[in-house]
Amino acid sequence: MSMVCLSDFEAYAKKYLPKIAWDYFAAGADDCTTRDENILAYKRIRFRPRMLRDVSVMDIRTKILGSEISFPVGIAPTGFHQLAWPDGEKSTARAARAMDTCYIASTYSTCTLEEISAAAPGGLHWFQLYIHRNRAASQQLVQRAEALGFQGLVLTADLPYTGKRRNDVRNGFRLPPHMKVKNLEGAFEVCKMSLLDPSVTWNDIYWLRSLTRLPIIIKGILTREDAELAVKHGVQGIIVSNHGGRQLDEGPATIDALVEVVEAVRGRVEVYVDGGIRKGSDVLKALALGAKCVFIGRPALWGLAYKGEEGLQDVLRILQDEFRLSMALAG
Amino acid sequence: MSMVCLSDFEAYAKKYLPKIAWDYFAAGADDCTTRDENILAYKRIRFRPRMLRDVSVMDIRTKILGSEISFPVGIAPTGFHQLAWPDGEKSTARAARAMDTCYIASTYSTCTLEEISAAAPGGLHWFQLYIHRNRAASQQLVQRAEALGFQGLVLTADLPYTGKRRNDVRNGFRLPPHMKVKNLEGAFEVCKMSLLDPSVTWNDIYWLRSLTRLPIIIKGILTREDAELAVKHGVQGIIVSNHGGRQLDEGPATIDALVEVVEAVRGRVEVYVDGGIRKGSDVLKALALGAKCVFIGRPALWGLAYKGEEGLQDVLRILQDEFRLSMALAG
Amino acid sequence: MSMVCLSDFEAYAKKYLPKIAWDYFAAGADDCTTRDENILAYKRIRFRPRMLRDVSVMDIRTKILGSEISFPVGIAPTGFHQLAWPDGEKSTARAARAMDTCYIASTYSTCTLEEISAAAPGGLHWFQLYIHRNRAASQQLVQRAEALGFQGLVLTADLPYTGKRRNDVRNGFRLPPHMKVKNLEGAFEVCKMSLLDPSVTWNDIYWLRSLTRLPIIIKGILTREDAELAVKHGVQGIIVSNHGGRQLDEGPATIDALVEVVEAVRGRVEVYVDGGIRKGSDVLKALALGAKCVFIGRPALWGLAYKGEEGLQDVLRILQDEFRLSMALAG
Amino acid sequence: MSMVCLSDFEAYAKKYLPKIAWDYFAAGADDCTTRDENILAYKRIRFRPRMLRDVSVMDIRTKILGSEISFPVGIAPTGFHQLAWPDGEKSTARAARAMDTCYIASTYSTCTLEEISAAAPGGLHWFQLYIHRNRAASQQLVQRAEALGFQGLVLTADLPYTGKRRNDVRNGFRLPPHMKVKNLEGAFEVCKMSLLDPSVTWNDIYWLRSLTRLPIIIKGILTREDAELAVKHGVQGIIVSNHGGRQLDEGPATIDALVEVVEAVRGRVEVYVDGGIRKGSDVLKALALGAKCVFIGRPALWGLAYKGEEGLQDVLRILQDEFRLSMALAG
Repeated sequence: MSMVCLSDFEAYAKKYLPKIAWDYFAAGADDCTTRDENILAYKRIRFRPRMLRDVSVMDIRTKILGSEISFPVGIAPTGFHQLAWPDGEKSTARAARAMDTCYIASTYSTCTLEEISAAAPGGLHWFQLYIHRNRAASQQLVQRAEALGFQGLVLTADLPYTGKRRNDVRNGFRLPPHMKVKNLEGAFEVCKMSLLDPSVTWNDIYWLRSLTRLPIIIKGILTREDAELAVKHGVQGIIVSNHGGRQLDEGPATIDALVEVVEAVRGRVEVYVDGGIRKGSDVLKALALGAKCVFIGRPALWGLAYKGEEGLQDVLRILQDEFRLSMALAG
Repeated sequence: MSMVCLSDFEAYAKKYLPKIAWDYFAAGADDCTTRDENILAYKRIRFRPRMLRDVSVMDIRTKILGSEISFPVGIAPTGFHQLAWPDGEKSTARAARAMDTCYIASTYSTCTLEEISAAAPGGLHWFQLYIHRNRAASQQLVQRAEALGFQGLVLTADLPYTGKRRNDVRNGFRLPPHMKVKNLEGAFEVCKMSLLDPSVTWNDIYWLRSLTRLPIIIKGILTREDAELAVKHGVQGIIVSNHGGRQLDEGPATIDALVEVVEAVRGRVEVYVDGGIRKGSDVLKALALGAKCVFIGRPALWGLAYKGEEGLQDVLRILQDEFRLSMALAG
Repeated sequence: MSMVCLSDFEAYAKKYLPKIAWDYFAAGADDCTTRDENILAYKRIRFRPRMLRDVSVMDIRTKILGSEISFPVGIAPTGFHQLAWPDGEKSTARAARAMDTCYIASTYSTCTLEEISAAAPGGLHWFQLYIHRNRAASQQLVQRAEALGFQGLVLTADLPYTGKRRNDVRNGFRLPPHMKVKNLEGAFEVCKMSLLDPSVTWNDIYWLRSLTRLPIIIKGILTREDAELAVKHGVQGIIVSNHGGRQLDEGPATIDALVEVVEAVRGRVEVYVDGGIRKGSDVLKALALGAKCVFIGRPALWGLAYKGEEGLQDVLRILQDEFRLSMALAG
Repeated sequence: MSMVCLSDFEAYAKKYLPKIAWDYFAAGADDCTTRDENILAYKRIRFRPRMLRDVSVMDIRTKILGSEISFPVGIAPTGFHQLAWPDGEKSTARAARAMDTCYIASTYSTCTLEEISAAAPGGLHWFQLYIHRNRAASQQLVQRAEALGFQGLVLTADLPYTGKRRNDVRNGFRLPPHMKVKNLEGAFEVCKMSLLDPSVTWNDIYWLRSLTRLPIIIKGILTREDAELAVKHGVQGIIVSNHGGRQLDEGPATIDALVEVVEAVRGRVEVYVDGGIRKGSDVLKALALGAKCVFIGRPALWGLAYKGEEGLQDVLRILQDEFRLSMALAG
């Protein structure tokens, strides 16, 4: 099987992952309309290619919140990487560092923050956070991440409750007994999302700010109104995201929402986007529409499922090559 | 078979109901364009989800014409429930009461109004009415319903003649001999719709008003012009409906017509909608566009076909859970 | 097999006609885009149904060029009816008379004008004409038709050359030896369309006018510019037509062109339309958009293929019933 | 197998060419969206057919850069014709001359310019050029073409790097050992596109101009901005092209880009288009939108694959007949 584009990795993962794991990673809420729209919306955007420009030298390095990365594609926070590869998030961290890009580790990792950090010392890591009913638990996580050298705090805003993913319900999805959400150290049982606090509001950003000097990036913004609120509450970055279409179905595709958010933000904070990136040209479109960087979720998991950190590096390398080629061909 | 969403009940009913019954319930007029559009139109509507709002407590109770119901989903009038479940409309009435919502009993019930009323005493019941050529028959039905404690009178306006449902013609659809349209007490033979009066006009609302103190709700309105006429003729409520796409094919989807009707009515009477509701998020969309409550037709029949009153309660409970979750995720 | 709607007749004809005949009748030019668009365009038009109007009595009779017909659906000119039924155009004429409507006999009939006329004396017949290189042949046809009591002359304007119908080319389509284009009495060989005159212009309308007192109806108009020219050159009627999508592919659907033609004509002459009529509601749409009457082509042939004149009457009766029902349900 | 339309040749080629050759010719970049859009965009354009115009005599000859051709369809530059037919570009040249039209020979021909020229002396030939890192090589090619009587120089502007054609990567596409890119005389190895110079800019047009008196046509323009630059830099013609969708995916269809380019050019130079031409009516659409002539790529290869020069003549003859018929039917 020759791995030429990201769909090849998807096909591999679908074929070789246990069904319960594949279904969990692939799941979208309800009818999966938004999950699929994330991809379709990219296809509706057309380039206006320009010719006869000198494209012999191209610089695709960029900076996010001051840290340089080799190209504008990072790893979005997704849970349970051991479902895809035995070494789980440790492999993810190693691949991201090897490719010189940013990895956002999820609260719902199957490795601890300490293990992730130790697996790829010197790598650019951000930490993704939910706010729990038990605020002390959240506070402890933030402070652990900061102490370990994580350089950004990503607050997920779109999960007051878990979306309804039909196949997960049908499968009775839960982690196999030998995997654990280790960051939560027994404080929660797996998937007991009900420990998340649905009463969180914008004011809790101030509380979070009081706990840490790390920049705060808010993930899950889809409207200009919320983008304005995010800036007003002092976040450093916004990730336009609909949680891969896993939360509210039939909201906007992220690339469509990006336009509206970028317009509202007017450069005051950095804006990123995730969801639906499948080709290097998608990255170029997102950047052309104002994103500073994109993050990939499912494709990273497919890479892991293929060959662990090596597979994920393959995925990133393909995106990088395609991105560079698209830039050249678009002039 | 695990029942996770309403489509699961549809698949069950399609598999286990006799073909003639399934066809009758599923039927749309002509090419079934409007029947299918009712569903597709919901999919075209997109949410603008808002984040970081306190969604820890949500009140989904509402009132229709002054009566409180547990959530804004009632049971639309459909005929011949014994085709779906032996106890027929008695089961429907019990399920509606158990879920604390409104049930609109059809003239074409296979149980009498008295049986329905006795099956679920204290339940919120409305009665759906056609005007017959024999006005005395209609008058008698209205007065029976009022005497039995029904709390609303729903006049169906879109059936001067029955629409052309091809499969019913092919199947030679008629009730099996052991079922009867009991409300009509032998006054009509089954399906002799020709006893309905096609000369009915708006002035007959005044005649109906003279027979009863019950509120009159008119069902089948699809245009602003008719909405204006309905208000002018003193109805208390409007159900935007195209009879599940079973009458005139290639009219508007009800969710699209709702917008126009709500705008014309400007809050003077309550507006409801039926047709195409398949998920809790559809309910949220209808409410966001101005409906006070929605009614479900075919999904209620699928619930009955699955497990009688228990199955219908399952359907309602799923819609309720999905509706609550959608509200939380949309902020 | 129960014949409930026109598609049932289509399925029957497809199953039982010889492939070469089915292909000939079904053929569209090139990719058949326009043939299929004729139907799809009707589906895009939506009714705004009105309720509670007295629809107990409906008059669906109408007049075309002063002659009363039982409902606004006539038979469009199509060739070679013996391919569908042994009695050919004689059966067509009988069915049209039995249903009290208009039949436009084609030059390319497999019966003579005299046979058609004798088969249904007193029927309302129009004659469809091409202008041949040999003008005397055309003149003789016109005068025969007038003498036989035909009441209208339909000049086809869209066939200077025959469109490219791929399956007919593949099949090497030609009439079987026992059928003849009898009207042309050996003057032409079958399918030698090259005897048609491609140099015909608007001025030839004046020549045609000089030959006959019959009203002239022009068939094949699709633009406002040509509609204006038609009125200016003194025709009595216009049939908006694209020859069933058999001539230039990728022109407009006729129902779309109708709107533009009706607007340009401003009631100065009668406007009719053919192409894509498959349901009674299509007839209602065409009338609502300004057509005085519609004509059916392929459905008439399917009716013939099913049971000759009886089958064609079935087709017309179904359309009539559906048309009446649509009128009632649309209010 | 009867060859009625261009799709028949496509089906033949797909069936009989070696998979690696078919894949190479059929390839589009990435998801092949633009390749397919080239065709779909033609289908979205609708004619407004006019009637009763004298179409008995039609002149379809035209001139491109002063040279008369028998109809406005030429052969676009495509590589490796020996993959389709043993005589390769020699057959192409002979067919083009037989049909009295223009053939643009590709740099990546499997015959030398000298062989092509000798195969069809007196034929109208243009030469397609890339600019190589080794400018002397390019200069030598230009001067050889001029000396051999080629009458135009087509500079391809959209290939600073080769697009990503997934199947070619999977197949490890390369020429079979007995074929060579003879024009480059061992200066390059096959497919080593990296010898092309990605630093080429508009100023290199001046350099090219200094080498030759041949008219320069630039191929690959898709925007008004680049069209303006092309005119400003003194080219004689523009071919609106996206390289058959083989370079940047998800740019515009060429027929859509044509409109914008024609508008910008305002008649100052001739504008041609390639990509997606499959029927004579496509040619008519392109001309109606301002193209002076169209060029066909893949259909020419299918013709070669079918029967060499005879097959290519069949393809051209079909297009010519269809084009003439479309003109007549459109009035």
